[in-house]
Amino acid sequence: MEIGMIGLGKMGLNLALNLTDNGHRVYGYDPGNVSTSQFETKASLEDVVEALKAPRVVWVMVPAGEVTEHVLNDLYDALSPGDIVIDGGNSNYKESMRRADHFKEKLIYFFDVGTSGGMDGARNGACTMIGGDMEAFGKIEQLFQDISTDHGYLYAGPSGSGHFLKMVHNGIEYGMMQAIAEGFEVLEKSLFDYEYEDVARVWNHGSVIRSWLMELTESAFSKDAKLDDIRGVMHASGEGKWTVETALEYDVPTPVIALSLMMRQRSLQDDTFSGKVVAALRNEFGGHAVEKK
Amino acid sequence: MEIGMIGLGKMGLNLALNLTDNGHRVYGYDPGNVSTSQFETKASLEDVVEALKAPRVVWVMVPAGEVTEHVLNDLYDALSPGDIVIDGGNSNYKESMRRADHFKEKLIYFFDVGTSGGMDGARNGACTMIGGDMEAFGKIEQLFQDISTDHGYLYAGPSGSGHFLKMVHNGIEYGMMQAIAEGFEVLEKSLFDYEYEDVARVWNHGSVIRSWLMELTESAFSKDAKLDDIRGVMHASGEGKWTVETALEYDVPTPVIALSLMMRQRSLQDDTFSGKVVAALRNEFGGHAVEKK
Repeated sequence: MEIGMIGLGKMGLNLALNLTDNGHRVYGYDPGNVSTSQFETKASLEDVVEALKAPRVVWVMVPAGEVTEHVLNDLYDALSPGDIVIDGGNSNYKESMRRADHFKEKLIYFFDVGTSGGMDGARNGACTMIGGDMEAFGKIEQLFQDISTDHGYLYAGPSGSGHFLKMVHNGIEYGMMQAIAEGFEVLEKSLFDYEYEDVARVWNHGSVIRSWLMELTESAFSKDAKLDDIRGVMHASGEGKWTVETALEYDVPTPVIALSLMMRQRSLQDDTFSGKVVAALRNEFGGHAVEKK
Repeated sequence: MEIGMIGLGKMGLNLALNLTDNGHRVYGYDPGNVSTSQFETKASLEDVVEALKAPRVVWVMVPAGEVTEHVLNDLYDALSPGDIVIDGGNSNYKESMRRADHFKEKLIYFFDVGTSGGMDGARNGACTMIGGDMEAFGKIEQLFQDISTDHGYLYAGPSGSGHFLKMVHNGIEYGMMQAIAEGFEVLEKSLFDYEYEDVARVWNHGSVIRSWLMELTESAFSKDAKLDDIRGVMHASGEGKWTVETALEYDVPTPVIALSLMMRQRSLQDDTFSGKVVAALRNEFGGHAVEKK
């Protein structure tokens, strides 16, 4: 097939190469004017749309939020009825439901696609969760079969269901990562002297907790035995917070995912106001010393 | 080698068969007098010891706690200097350190071995974490190489380090399981209609959260699409609690492992006293209705 790829960053470029390998013809464009010799790039989003034969398929792989909103608005203007838009980024599912309704007004199909597996997955076989019109999905299913690993794509349901599934996937990811991390911190403070790379390796061979994340843990310790070169600051890109917001909305208790998110938030603070309050109160009622700034 | 196996339950029997497959001669005994035609069983622990040529190797695979204590005391009396005892159960590492010291008084080597991978692992390739005397380990390393999956055994350090590692492994397991579980509960309450088996399957193919636990999740949903036949009661066998106790001892914050444990504890309660207290207080200050028993 012919496909336009808007966004040629770490994920978009690898997906475009993956599509090219699978015999698809990619016209790429990046707002930062990335160019590559491995497939045809264009100077603008409109040039990409121009190059494609109708009905067009355009994959958007740009950062969620403003950039995605901007690109999708441009596509709304440039595309025609019957065309198909795929948002493969980490957009909020509610935004995706709104956007699908908006595109529908112009008879354009909008698919929200959660993409997991990192850069390596994008290049060699991703995991994709797809929400949108079931009938129109038939026209693009081959793309997902081609770029995903075997059994690695799922038509999840109507608009929003793909990004919702990716959001929850990331919430689970937060919890699994924090559990692994807490375990290694207990080892680090213990009376024993473990080689963490060896520990992660043995846990990856036959144990109940063997997993891709544990393989990445093994890889990280193989490069830096005690992670001495890394600060324990944990950034986040939104899906964990949305999972917790959604859990609150549905009254589902999710203490592990919530605490994983909050430990990330805590890691971004040098000092805390809550800590000051508790220290002040201990001083007030018990005369316990406070640490002066 | 010749080896005695005390305890022929789900794990011990499978390990004994695994050892037999690998050319070792097993003499088995179970306190419940289990017998099998697949290797030689004896009528008592003492008969097992009698059958073995010195220096003897005896593997103990019985429930942690009283049963293990009882069996190890009997072995202490029956064995001779130079013999080797392996505790492959989920004993507390502090007990294992104490027992190693005790056996050392009689010049018997004691190894604490964490065994992961479930029944299938025990039968076809386990994951083993071994603590004990490094030099004596050389005499039994072949056993672990044979019964473990490739790269699936680790000499972890001095006495206690094997069971400590298994304890932390199980703590991580609690957190990973609870994270997965919370994610599926968010899906279950969502506005979308997911097939959970399909969701687990796609997450097992190329996603960041692919793992053996997610494969077991897929398997469980394949048998019962909404788990209608199962109550959400989560029992535990101690290692998660020990991980949290150890974290408290070391002042390591482990909110995810702790909350995973506490959600298990909560699942065993029908009603809670803390719930009564909060309901009563809301009634006291705000006149909010309480639910009468």
